[in-house]
Amino acid sequence: MSDQAARREATAPTGAAPEAVAPTVVAPADAAPTVVALGGGHGLHVTLSALRQVTTELTAVVTVADDGGSSGRLRQQFGVLPPGDLRMALAALCGDDEWGTTWSRVVQHRFDGEGELSGHAVGNLLIVALWELLGDTVEGLDWIGMLLRAHGRVLPMAAVPLDIAAEVEGADPDRPHEITVVRGQAACATTQGQVRSISLVPEDPPACRQAVEAVNEADWVVFGPGSWFTSVLPHLLVPDLAASLLTTRARRLVALNLAPQPGETAGFSPHTHLDVLARHAPGLRVDVVLADTSAALAGLTQLEKAAEALGGRLVLADVAMADGSPRHDPRRLAAAYADIFEGE
Amino acid sequence: MSDQAARREATAPTGAAPEAVAPTVVAPADAAPTVVALGGGHGLHVTLSALRQVTTELTAVVTVADDGGSSGRLRQQFGVLPPGDLRMALAALCGDDEWGTTWSRVVQHRFDGEGELSGHAVGNLLIVALWELLGDTVEGLDWIGMLLRAHGRVLPMAAVPLDIAAEVEGADPDRPHEITVVRGQAACATTQGQVRSISLVPEDPPACRQAVEAVNEADWVVFGPGSWFTSVLPHLLVPDLAASLLTTRARRLVALNLAPQPGETAGFSPHTHLDVLARHAPGLRVDVVLADTSAALAGLTQLEKAAEALGGRLVLADVAMADGSPRHDPRRLAAAYADIFEGE
Repeated sequence: MSDQAARREATAPTGAAPEAVAPTVVAPADAAPTVVALGGGHGLHVTLSALRQVTTELTAVVTVADDGGSSGRLRQQFGVLPPGDLRMALAALCGDDEWGTTWSRVVQHRFDGEGELSGHAVGNLLIVALWELLGDTVEGLDWIGMLLRAHGRVLPMAAVPLDIAAEVEGADPDRPHEITVVRGQAACATTQGQVRSISLVPEDPPACRQAVEAVNEADWVVFGPGSWFTSVLPHLLVPDLAASLLTTRARRLVALNLAPQPGETAGFSPHTHLDVLARHAPGLRVDVVLADTSAALAGLTQLEKAAEALGGRLVLADVAMADGSPRHDPRRLAAAYADIFEGE
Repeated sequence: MSDQAARREATAPTGAAPEAVAPTVVAPADAAPTVVALGGGHGLHVTLSALRQVTTELTAVVTVADDGGSSGRLRQQFGVLPPGDLRMALAALCGDDEWGTTWSRVVQHRFDGEGELSGHAVGNLLIVALWELLGDTVEGLDWIGMLLRAHGRVLPMAAVPLDIAAEVEGADPDRPHEITVVRGQAACATTQGQVRSISLVPEDPPACRQAVEAVNEADWVVFGPGSWFTSVLPHLLVPDLAASLLTTRARRLVALNLAPQPGETAGFSPHTHLDVLARHAPGLRVDVVLADTSAALAGLTQLEKAAEALGGRLVLADVAMADGSPRHDPRRLAAAYADIFEGE
């Protein structure tokens, strides 16, 4: 930790313009920013895949509210945190060498067929086994990280499994304006209505101590991209973690999604994502909002205003896949992150 | 392989008497004998735990006929080799450092409870996942070996899953002298009758090529201890492997069990084990038969004769646990192995 502190105090190299720095090359350790990425699922996977190209000092803080699929079954059977989003984050931190690519594939591998193992991801089973053996969530994840030679650390956002409850408008298509409460991450993510807000059950879960420390000691905290209500916002509803996110000396970056997500943010424009973020985290200030250049088409002025309302500046960059699909390209995202970290 | 050949040709150090050599210290690589241990289950686990203290050049060749428990379920669901005995051998080859002891515990860990995972060993699931991903049995096992930093290599004795069929006398307690055929390793190991002989189904399975090569290139081949019919003898019924076991230039050591095994070798005296071995492998010559000193109580003369009939000399040593239980003490067994390897 004193290393990290020293790094923060050190004078950043200023001789070279940001353009002169190859963005996908990891900076030397004494210049690498300490970054905490918050999220879950595929969005966190892509942001970690990008960030591990930009820094060696990386921590993922992961949602633990999943109640579907392999994670849901394990959570129900063993009373543990749902391991799936943690596993996916660990896989994203694997290296590009043969060891990293092989073990990343192994932990992501799902058994198929009709049998009892069908649908379980191998890494989920490995994580649960380590938790059973060691009796310590963070220690178990650290052991998997050592196994994978992960380029960073993966932590849960809370110390207990959570449920998400969403206020949804029009969950019942026959009553489009009625607001009902939908409970469970899987149900929220697939509702036919429009999510208005979320809360956690229990409302006041204990944060993961190491996650709070990581946020406090970071140079940068990165929110998103990802499922906005079920992966990005939940961190801000864990009281101790939310407090550290509001008070940390770290700079805060919000990476917006490329497109609305059917069933969760259908019909949302980019600035609506920021409005929702602001509503769920009163007092949160951000430094940078990163959006794909295409976001300009969807109302640049409103987006700039929404970023300003959060105290941040808007950065537009080409971060989408070249094939036009609404997915982030990890290398382009890495280049954008590197430019932002260097420029601030 | 040329290293191993060179090692075989090298003059063994003769200056020190065997007593002067600390038996549980691994010999320097240029003096370590190349050892292949054949077996399965707990017997192979104990012999590997001993042998890894004696040599750095160690290969386990493991039975693949298990049809019970976690292995049986996986074999049935995925059509793969039963992984359990392979997993146990890999665990036995883990080091005594924190990495080795932790991962050994992880792969050996069994899920409990009433759910779909109940009874599955984590290592079994990991092995099956690697087989599914890599499509190559030996490559998958080698990757797990690298993960565990295993002190040796683990190979299956055959390239396809097998069944064991046993001729059993008195399987039906009401007809004590009737001989019937019992099929399946789990059924053979728990029959109420006395096993007379076993055969494999299919009768002519392809051997694992790398296992045959390991036997051909070994300095020592070690049979047993272990479940005599279901773990020790099957290797001699895989034609190509049996041929290499009969023709290898390696010296052959038979490590006898400490006690008859209820349900498989009930009522067997030590020399009966050797008689059965000889009957299942016509033409097999052995160099050393290692028995616990207590075997002398059960008929030393007959045991010596049975060893001589196989071409071998009998070595008695205190290899049992000091608490009097009929289990081998890995450290005492290591000392006995070291003395034998040094002395020949």
